[in-house]
Amino acid sequence: MHVIDINCDMGESFGAYSIGYDEEILNYVTSANIACGFHAGDPATMRKTVQLALEKNVGIGVHPGFQDLVGFGRREMKISPQETYDIIVYQIGALYGFVRAEGGKLQHVKPHGALYNMAAKDKALSKAIAEAIYKIDPELILFGLAGSELIEAGKKIGLRTANEVFSDRTYQQDGSLTPRSHPNALIIDSQEADNQVITMVKEEKVRTLQGMDLSIQADTVCIHSDTKGALEFAKSLSVSLKEADIRLTKISDYK
Amino acid sequence: MHVIDINCDMGESFGAYSIGYDEEILNYVTSANIACGFHAGDPATMRKTVQLALEKNVGIGVHPGFQDLVGFGRREMKISPQETYDIIVYQIGALYGFVRAEGGKLQHVKPHGALYNMAAKDKALSKAIAEAIYKIDPELILFGLAGSELIEAGKKIGLRTANEVFSDRTYQQDGSLTPRSHPNALIIDSQEADNQVITMVKEEKVRTLQGMDLSIQADTVCIHSDTKGALEFAKSLSVSLKEADIRLTKISDYK
Amino acid sequence: MHVIDINCDMGESFGAYSIGYDEEILNYVTSANIACGFHAGDPATMRKTVQLALEKNVGIGVHPGFQDLVGFGRREMKISPQETYDIIVYQIGALYGFVRAEGGKLQHVKPHGALYNMAAKDKALSKAIAEAIYKIDPELILFGLAGSELIEAGKKIGLRTANEVFSDRTYQQDGSLTPRSHPNALIIDSQEADNQVITMVKEEKVRTLQGMDLSIQADTVCIHSDTKGALEFAKSLSVSLKEADIRLTKISDYK
Amino acid sequence: MHVIDINCDMGESFGAYSIGYDEEILNYVTSANIACGFHAGDPATMRKTVQLALEKNVGIGVHPGFQDLVGFGRREMKISPQETYDIIVYQIGALYGFVRAEGGKLQHVKPHGALYNMAAKDKALSKAIAEAIYKIDPELILFGLAGSELIEAGKKIGLRTANEVFSDRTYQQDGSLTPRSHPNALIIDSQEADNQVITMVKEEKVRTLQGMDLSIQADTVCIHSDTKGALEFAKSLSVSLKEADIRLTKISDYK
Repeated sequence: MHVIDINCDMGESFGAYSIGYDEEILNYVTSANIACGFHAGDPATMRKTVQLALEKNVGIGVHPGFQDLVGFGRREMKISPQETYDIIVYQIGALYGFVRAEGGKLQHVKPHGALYNMAAKDKALSKAIAEAIYKIDPELILFGLAGSELIEAGKKIGLRTANEVFSDRTYQQDGSLTPRSHPNALIIDSQEADNQVITMVKEEKVRTLQGMDLSIQADTVCIHSDTKGALEFAKSLSVSLKEADIRLTKISDYK
Repeated sequence: MHVIDINCDMGESFGAYSIGYDEEILNYVTSANIACGFHAGDPATMRKTVQLALEKNVGIGVHPGFQDLVGFGRREMKISPQETYDIIVYQIGALYGFVRAEGGKLQHVKPHGALYNMAAKDKALSKAIAEAIYKIDPELILFGLAGSELIEAGKKIGLRTANEVFSDRTYQQDGSLTPRSHPNALIIDSQEADNQVITMVKEEKVRTLQGMDLSIQADTVCIHSDTKGALEFAKSLSVSLKEADIRLTKISDYK
Repeated sequence: MHVIDINCDMGESFGAYSIGYDEEILNYVTSANIACGFHAGDPATMRKTVQLALEKNVGIGVHPGFQDLVGFGRREMKISPQETYDIIVYQIGALYGFVRAEGGKLQHVKPHGALYNMAAKDKALSKAIAEAIYKIDPELILFGLAGSELIEAGKKIGLRTANEVFSDRTYQQDGSLTPRSHPNALIIDSQEADNQVITMVKEEKVRTLQGMDLSIQADTVCIHSDTKGALEFAKSLSVSLKEADIRLTKISDYK
Repeated sequence: MHVIDINCDMGESFGAYSIGYDEEILNYVTSANIACGFHAGDPATMRKTVQLALEKNVGIGVHPGFQDLVGFGRREMKISPQETYDIIVYQIGALYGFVRAEGGKLQHVKPHGALYNMAAKDKALSKAIAEAIYKIDPELILFGLAGSELIEAGKKIGLRTANEVFSDRTYQQDGSLTPRSHPNALIIDSQEADNQVITMVKEEKVRTLQGMDLSIQADTVCIHSDTKGALEFAKSLSVSLKEADIRLTKISDYK
C-alpha cells in the first residue's frame, strides 16, 4: 500500500501576534514543523504547539530559520556554513527543551523559507545543516526539496531523509519549483493539486509546466496553514488521498 | 575534607562584541554558567564556550536571563510565572543543543541578573524556574542565593540545589547581600574576600556587615569574569582555598 | 460648542504579522498614535500608517513603548529615567523621519502600555518623558491619563497636554481606571460607554464605580482598534457625540 | 589649497558592550558616522556620541545598516528597494531625534557594511537610499565609495555627494577595493597609507595594485576606530596631511 506524510509549518505566532490555524490544521497533517523564535514563534507558542502536536499524535519537527523576524525568514542572508551550523543547533535545542519537558520526542528537521531554498542548491550550506542535525541526534529525519542538495547532504552524513513535494506548486524540468513570479507558479484548483500528489505518490513522477513527465520521489507533502483556504485545501487533500488508497502516516512510521 | 565549587558567568560575548576573559578564568573555576542569547551570548559564542568548558573539564551550566540584550538582563521585568517557565525551558534547550552536539552533559542551571535577584524573594517565580528545570531534566542542579526562595523551590520539587555565596560582597542580617548602592557593599581586598569564603566553607557562617555571625551554607562560590581584576581575584581565591585545605571540585562531584 | 479629540493606537502590525483595523478605524478618529518598532510596528508599517493618517487628515502622534516586542510593551520594566528619556527620543525621531519624508507634521506623543501606566504614577519617569519631548519639539502635545503625574510633568516643563479619558473603562474614586482584574472594569454596552464620554465632555465629571461623581477633564478619548467590536464601538461613539452636539476635531485644532 | 574630510564610524557600542575609541578618535576626524541601533548602537550610545561630536565640532552623520546586530551589519541581506528605503528613513529619523534634542544639525548619511558595499554596485538599492535621504532632508550629503553607483544615485536625485576613499586599502583597476581575502588588500605601513591619501587628494589619482594610475576623486577619507592601531593611524594621517598642506575640514564646509 502507498503511504505519504503530510507536513505543515506551524507555531508561527509571536507574542500578541497570531498567525495560522494550527489547531484545526493539525487534524489533517501527520507532521508539524514548529518555528523556533528566529523567523517566527516564541517560547510560549512553542510550548503550546508542542502540546497540541502531542495531543494529536503528530510527528514533531524543528523548523529553523534565519534570525530575521521582521522578514519572516524569507529574505536571503549571506551567512557562513559555521554560522548556519550554529543557528541550527541552537534552534533544534530550543525546541528539544519543550519536547523533552512535555515527554515527547523530536521526529524531524525542516529548514524554513530562504534557508530552505538556499540549501536546496548550496552544498556547503546543506552540509552545515546536516552536520548540525547529525551531531545533536542522528535519529532525526531531514526534510528537503525532493532531489535537492539538502537531501544529498543528509544521505551523505547518514541521516534518514524525506523528499518533500508540493501539492499546489508547479514544477520545472530540472525539478525545481516554478518561481512565484511566474503566472502559473501556483495550482489554484484543489482537485488538480490533489491529483498531482496522487500521481507523485503512486507513479513517482510529476508533469512539469513544460508538459513532460519528471521522476520524483514523494516522501512527504507540504501544505500551508496561514492562508484563508488552507483548511479547505488540507481537508480536500486528506480525503482525496484516502480515496486513492494512500495511507497518511507520519514519516517516522515508515522511513 | 572540605570541598567547594567555584562558578563564573561566561559566554557573554555577542557577535562582534567581546566581553569577559573566559579562556583564562576557566583555569580557576570548576563550574561555568553559560549565557544563552537572551541577556547575552549568541549561538557561536555558546558553541565555543561549551567547547572550552569541556576541554577544561569544568561543569557546564545554563545561565538563562530576561530577553533584554540592551539591558544585559539586569533590569527587572514583570513577567508571569508561565512566561518565566517558557523562557527557562527555551534557554536550557538551546544550550543543551550545543552540549549534546559536543558530546557533553549539562550539570546545572543558574538564573542571571535581575531574574536571579527576583527569584531569590519571589515564591511563584522560583517555582516556575524549578518546574522548568525539573521537567527537562530532574538531574540538573539548581544554583540560587544561599537560603533563598529559589533554593527552597528547588528542594520542594526534588532538585538537587547549590547554595551560592559571594566572596566579594558583604552580607546583611537577613542573609541578603548588601545592596550595591551601600558604600560597604563590596569587599575590595582579595585576602579579606578569600577569608570570608574560607569561613563560610569551614565554619558555615559569615560575619554580617552589622558585625554578627550568620549561619550560611556554601556549596558554590561565585566569581566574576568581566572586570579588570577578575583574573587576579580568581587566582587568589583558588590559591587561598587550597592552602586552607579546601578541595575545589565541580558541584556534580559531591552534590 | 463642546469639542473632543478621539485617538486610537495603530501601526501595530509587524512584518508578516497583521493587527488592527487601521484603515477603517481612521474614519472615526481624529488623532492616531503610531507604534515605532519597540513594542510593535516596523519601518514599513510606520510609513504606510503615516501615509494613511495624512490622507485622512488625522493628527499624527508618536506611540513609544518599552523595547519588548514579545510582550507588546505591556510588561513593566524597571528602567532608569535616563534610559526612558533615550528610548523616547529615539522613537519620536524614528517616526519623525517618516512624517518628514511624507511632508507631514507630528502632533502629539502618547506613551504605550506599561510605560503609560507607570508614568501615570511615577514623577521621575514622567519628567524624563516630558523632557525628551520638549527637547525635540516643544510644540508637541503630551497625552496622558487625565489628572496623572504625566500630565503634571508636561505642564511643568511647558508642553501642551491632553487629558485622556476612556469610554469603555470604569473609574475609581482616585481618578484611576478600575483594574482589568475587577469584574466591572469594562463597560460592555456601547451606549453606556458613549454616555460616559458625553458626560465627561459636557459636565466635566464621571460617575465612579463607587457611585460618586468625580471631576475630570476630557481633552481626548481613547478607543481601541484591535478588538473585534472596535469598529462598531468607534462608529457608535462618533455618531453619539455628534448627536450630542460635540464636535470631533484633532487635538491640535483647539489645544 | 587642498582640503579633505576625515570620517570615522562610531557610536557602535551596545548596552554593556563597548567597542571603539570614540572619544579619542574624535580629536583626529572631521566627520562622525553614528550607528543607529540596527547593526550596532543603542539609544544611550547615540545620545552620548552626538554630544561628543557636538563638543568636538565634528560633522554628524547617520550610519544606517541592516537590522542584523549579531552580524554587525556585515552580512548581505537580500532586501527590496522599498524595505531599504524604509530602514534608511527610520534610522535617519532616530538619529535626528538626538541631534535635534541636543541642538545640533545632521550633516551626512553613510550606509554601513554590507549595505554600503551592495549599494556601490546596485542601482535600485542606491536609488532607494538616495530617495530616502532626499525626502527627509535634501541638504544632507551622501557618502559613498568614490565613483560608485551610490554616488551616481545621489547626484541624479539632486543630493550633494562625497566620494569616499580609503587610506589603508589597495585599489583594483575598476576602482573597487581589493577584496579582504587578497593578501595585499590592506596597507599595513601607516606612512604608505598616508601617502596614498595625499596623492589622491593632490593629484586625483591612485596607484592600483596592478601598478597603473587610476583617476579618483577624494572628498572624504575613511578611518577606523575599532582596531588597536586605529588611534596611531589617525594621528599619523592627521599630521601627514597637514604637513602636505592639506586642510582638514568637515565636508559641509566645502561641499
